[in-house]
Amino acid sequence: MINNNYYSQEVHGPYELHDIGNLELEEGGTIRGCQLAYATFGTLNAAKDNAILIPIWYSGTNKIIEQVYIGKGRALDPDKYFIIIVNQIGNGLSTSPHNTPPPAGMGNFPHVRIGDDVCAQHKFVTERFGLDSLALVVGGSMGAQQTYEWAVRYPDMVKRAAPIADTARNTIHDFLFTETLVESITSDPDFNRGFYTSSADVREGLLRHAKMWAVMGWSTEFFHENRHKTLGFSSMDDFIINFMYGYFSVMDPNDLLCMAWKWRRGDVATSAVTPVAICGPRWAELKPRPLSCLCPRICFFPPADCQAEWRLIADAEFRPIQTIDGHLALFGADPNAIGQLDKHLGELLATKI
Amino acid sequence: MINNNYYSQEVHGPYELHDIGNLELEEGGTIRGCQLAYATFGTLNAAKDNAILIPIWYSGTNKIIEQVYIGKGRALDPDKYFIIIVNQIGNGLSTSPHNTPPPAGMGNFPHVRIGDDVCAQHKFVTERFGLDSLALVVGGSMGAQQTYEWAVRYPDMVKRAAPIADTARNTIHDFLFTETLVESITSDPDFNRGFYTSSADVREGLLRHAKMWAVMGWSTEFFHENRHKTLGFSSMDDFIINFMYGYFSVMDPNDLLCMAWKWRRGDVATSAVTPVAICGPRWAELKPRPLSCLCPRICFFPPADCQAEWRLIADAEFRPIQTIDGHLALFGADPNAIGQLDKHLGELLATKI
Repeated sequence: MINNNYYSQEVHGPYELHDIGNLELEEGGTIRGCQLAYATFGTLNAAKDNAILIPIWYSGTNKIIEQVYIGKGRALDPDKYFIIIVNQIGNGLSTSPHNTPPPAGMGNFPHVRIGDDVCAQHKFVTERFGLDSLALVVGGSMGAQQTYEWAVRYPDMVKRAAPIADTARNTIHDFLFTETLVESITSDPDFNRGFYTSSADVREGLLRHAKMWAVMGWSTEFFHENRHKTLGFSSMDDFIINFMYGYFSVMDPNDLLCMAWKWRRGDVATSAVTPVAICGPRWAELKPRPLSCLCPRICFFPPADCQAEWRLIADAEFRPIQTIDGHLALFGADPNAIGQLDKHLGELLATKI
Repeated sequence: MINNNYYSQEVHGPYELHDIGNLELEEGGTIRGCQLAYATFGTLNAAKDNAILIPIWYSGTNKIIEQVYIGKGRALDPDKYFIIIVNQIGNGLSTSPHNTPPPAGMGNFPHVRIGDDVCAQHKFVTERFGLDSLALVVGGSMGAQQTYEWAVRYPDMVKRAAPIADTARNTIHDFLFTETLVESITSDPDFNRGFYTSSADVREGLLRHAKMWAVMGWSTEFFHENRHKTLGFSSMDDFIINFMYGYFSVMDPNDLLCMAWKWRRGDVATSAVTPVAICGPRWAELKPRPLSCLCPRICFFPPADCQAEWRLIADAEFRPIQTIDGHLALFGADPNAIGQLDKHLGELLATKI
């Protein structure tokens, strides 16, 4: 185990923990006493039909969702909905490599798939809140992967789904991009196959990882138009060190790698355990109305990849988001992009099912 | 020095060598007995006004230009023009880290700028062929950087210029991308600060470098539409190992880094030595007609960046190329892209100056 103050109530709270017991994983491992960290906003109504579930992206926690997406008068309004933000396994707040006791933690942490997260989340929301209906599942990036998986595994439970800026089946281009992210960390000799003394030991790997995110996460227009300066950084170097590296450097390398392993293999069609009959791409059977919101001008999860899947889903809408912030528009630095998302989510929630 | 059979007449010939003597570099170093490797096609006419100069991109040599761009009946027709393909310093055929005797070679090789190459090339074409006019300078990627530099330094000599898929001033986004390329090699402990025994020692670094090129060099559409399979590779893994890594693995790491250092700092406005008065961006003073041909849907050197510069150049045309092969369309795997380039170059050459 690694002591890491970043993953704490002080930084990300308030959040609570729910122990779902042992979680047998699709890849064969078991997480013993798997804990999901979550935060809720609003009140569950008597009919228990106003719950919204928000799974989270790579490196994110409940806190950024709370800060950027939830608010009175907005689409995700705690006055109207009971909003549950659930941290994915490996994100540092839920059970993760860095907070798992030996011998199962750190470099020995088992491989987790998107389907494992969704099974764990299903157990959590049913046994903790007694839910049998979710008015909406919405998430960005890896949160979208979980959203697609939710819609495929529990089609009767998920009334609406809004996967944002990701695909139901990961592309081979994205698989390769993520490989370069993984190798930026694992190639650091101080990573020591996952058995370092402190996350800070892997400084060089984490810095390379941050740079690669800067190359791919935003867009060329973002830098061309000096968006990084608008955000308060005097130069690219300043932006890299004090924003990109500042963001990632406090995180645990094994935790990031756990999420990256899962991300790379996201594919609703090949999950090992499923209550839905496999019949061609399983996401063709989606029952709710997914709303796939994409950020244009990006180097990964571009609109074309998402559109290709959207065409396979009955009764779905594809709504592109206009922004030059690329994939990392999800972080909310472009208020106009968030405004567009709010509008789309509001219209989706207003749809009668 | 490193013995590397890839840089040989057998692989890249026929080519010749021209010794321009000592080359004092903008950054302060000196290359002693600097040799430029070159290949020519066609015959110089009596007026000496039918010469075309083609400088070369990162990792490229005269051979790929010969194979992809030159031919009877094409724009670059050896029956009409005297075509000189010149290898940039550091590309392995011209003077480079791997072929320079100690102590100046390998990790001690001095830093070279685009301006140094163009000064060396100017000396070469004037003293070897007695040229005072170039009907066209054309190059792709780093060849475009050299093309811009030629047009700025020798505006009376360059009658037409066609910089393809690159910018006159490198962008900060591209500077960062190239940094990740550089670090993919230098982070390999076996790189040993540039003093390895064999290029093959740096296997892991070169493999990471190849993967990052695969992520950025093509496009998401390229893989979405299975272009890699069309090219004869059964999977992404097969493509990475047998095409991308196969291509780069035979090259010398220090040679690649020499070119990358130069590429990152490409900027016609800040070259230390210039016969052209500096007055705002120097490329605003370009006299010939540049023809900036870009490949859309790419993650670096996107059309928007090139268009921004093109607007600053008097009497220039911007002609985008339609292809999903991205930046690496320059390699010629999409005949349609090469056909478009041929058409544009033919029209440029037909222009009366």
